[in-house]
Amino acid sequence: MRRLSNPPPHVYANRAFDRAAKARTDAAWLAEERQRPTTRVLLMSGLRVMVLDDADPPCALWLTVSELDRPLSDDALFLGREHGVSAFALDLGQDQPRPGARFVELRTVGSLMPADEAGLLAYSRGLIFWHQRHRFCGACGHPTRPEQGGHVRRCHHCNSLHFPRSDPAVIVLITHHGPRGERCLLGRSPRFIPNMYSTLAGFVEPGESLEETVQREVHEEAGIHVHDITYRSSQPWPFPASLMLGFHARAQDDHLMIDRNELEDAAWFTRDELLDPSRRPIRLPNPDSIARHLIEEWLVNDA
Amino acid sequence: MRRLSNPPPHVYANRAFDRAAKARTDAAWLAEERQRPTTRVLLMSGLRVMVLDDADPPCALWLTVSELDRPLSDDALFLGREHGVSAFALDLGQDQPRPGARFVELRTVGSLMPADEAGLLAYSRGLIFWHQRHRFCGACGHPTRPEQGGHVRRCHHCNSLHFPRSDPAVIVLITHHGPRGERCLLGRSPRFIPNMYSTLAGFVEPGESLEETVQREVHEEAGIHVHDITYRSSQPWPFPASLMLGFHARAQDDHLMIDRNELEDAAWFTRDELLDPSRRPIRLPNPDSIARHLIEEWLVNDA
Repeated sequence: MRRLSNPPPHVYANRAFDRAAKARTDAAWLAEERQRPTTRVLLMSGLRVMVLDDADPPCALWLTVSELDRPLSDDALFLGREHGVSAFALDLGQDQPRPGARFVELRTVGSLMPADEAGLLAYSRGLIFWHQRHRFCGACGHPTRPEQGGHVRRCHHCNSLHFPRSDPAVIVLITHHGPRGERCLLGRSPRFIPNMYSTLAGFVEPGESLEETVQREVHEEAGIHVHDITYRSSQPWPFPASLMLGFHARAQDDHLMIDRNELEDAAWFTRDELLDPSRRPIRLPNPDSIARHLIEEWLVNDA
Repeated sequence: MRRLSNPPPHVYANRAFDRAAKARTDAAWLAEERQRPTTRVLLMSGLRVMVLDDADPPCALWLTVSELDRPLSDDALFLGREHGVSAFALDLGQDQPRPGARFVELRTVGSLMPADEAGLLAYSRGLIFWHQRHRFCGACGHPTRPEQGGHVRRCHHCNSLHFPRSDPAVIVLITHHGPRGERCLLGRSPRFIPNMYSTLAGFVEPGESLEETVQREVHEEAGIHVHDITYRSSQPWPFPASLMLGFHARAQDDHLMIDRNELEDAAWFTRDELLDPSRRPIRLPNPDSIARHLIEEWLVNDA
């Protein structure tokens, strides 16, 4: 496969935003930013984000601190700064949405939004999930409390620090060149919607390089050995906490031994079959996913 | 920089070992393997591994179950299988080492060992650290218990499952081509031994792609913007729980603005300076690290 030198930024990544990682260690500065009337606040309900009812494309409802009906609480998460204005995410819990707005799951609207906006919402969702899962210290069981605008949690019993977690996972487009030309391997999990096929994927285990994970996962799920493992691009995937690391790899042969506990089916597809759904009516993964990107990338490249 | 198509496997990665991820979900099978006299057991004391006193190169002490002075306990960690024999890691806690052996920190011996052996020990160290830090459920604070040979912990109060954690971090060799030819950027942390300089590195934050982390970290630490961000290779780094993702990137200019909270110093080095320590007496990072590998890779390539 020809190398594409500059993969475009993926949905849910955000290149322009300044996380202000140094500034957020300053508690006094953070307290000032929480009170500043122009500070922007993203409203969440747990993992769901508040969007305007009638916006097209979909649009999150950001308020300024001056528009809130209460002071911005200490547990609001500091996201960073844009054009000199600080931004926080606030979990409203069970509160009702504002009139003219509703709470939605990000994946229902993310791919329709500007990429930078979807990236900020994904980042907020990832942080909120992490806080939900780390209220207590794994080392001693006592409660932890957020610091640094929500980018650290500290256990005040054993003094352990806990940092946000991202689970690295490989996702791989496998190709094989045989008598029928080049084909790619796609599989379907029992969890998928009907007829959807996608690239194979799996979490990195402790003590593995990414390349080893690719080899292990593909062999476990499809029974094939791969070589020429080439990194392509990466995408944060906070559904709930993954970091997707996209690869291309070549299969040594095309004889599949499918693990039916992992995959309901897996099969080889030619470019023509994927480009003309009438020949083989399958659904590809959603356009917001790196899986779809890896497939599209292959479709537009010559073997 | 010319692309090297096949980076060699790094120390602490292990390509040959079979993790037997399907088999370890079978509790009855695991119980049998724990009792099988030929099953191999790696002896640890917390994060330290037992090695033979007089072995050169260094060699971990593996015992068979038949050589243990007790049954292999349920909390021994299942590592996987090699040549049809199961392998476990057992944390002996405060026990004394066997006669003729001692407990050592892996990094003092890892780079002198065969890569596959060092990889198994790194994998064991990473798992043991994870268990130490996840004895309690982060969501509800109740105790968790290991399942699947130590690859999952379950909270029996709220039924949450917890999986091993690897923290993805980018590590990047930055180059700049100017009037003095091509130079690379190395920095030193206040934690380093005297005169050591290394590549810049930092953890991936939620909502970031790897490429964004590279841009953010390099800008935060050295004040420069980079482009042509190219993935090179990856290395598990269980000291205690990192997954190092190695990149090359080009600086837009060579004007540094060093964050003195992060770096004690940073500077540009020519290949000649790194190849001839008499010209500029610095120490490079240890040979077991991907940092060293990224530097060596650049040294042997023409600009």
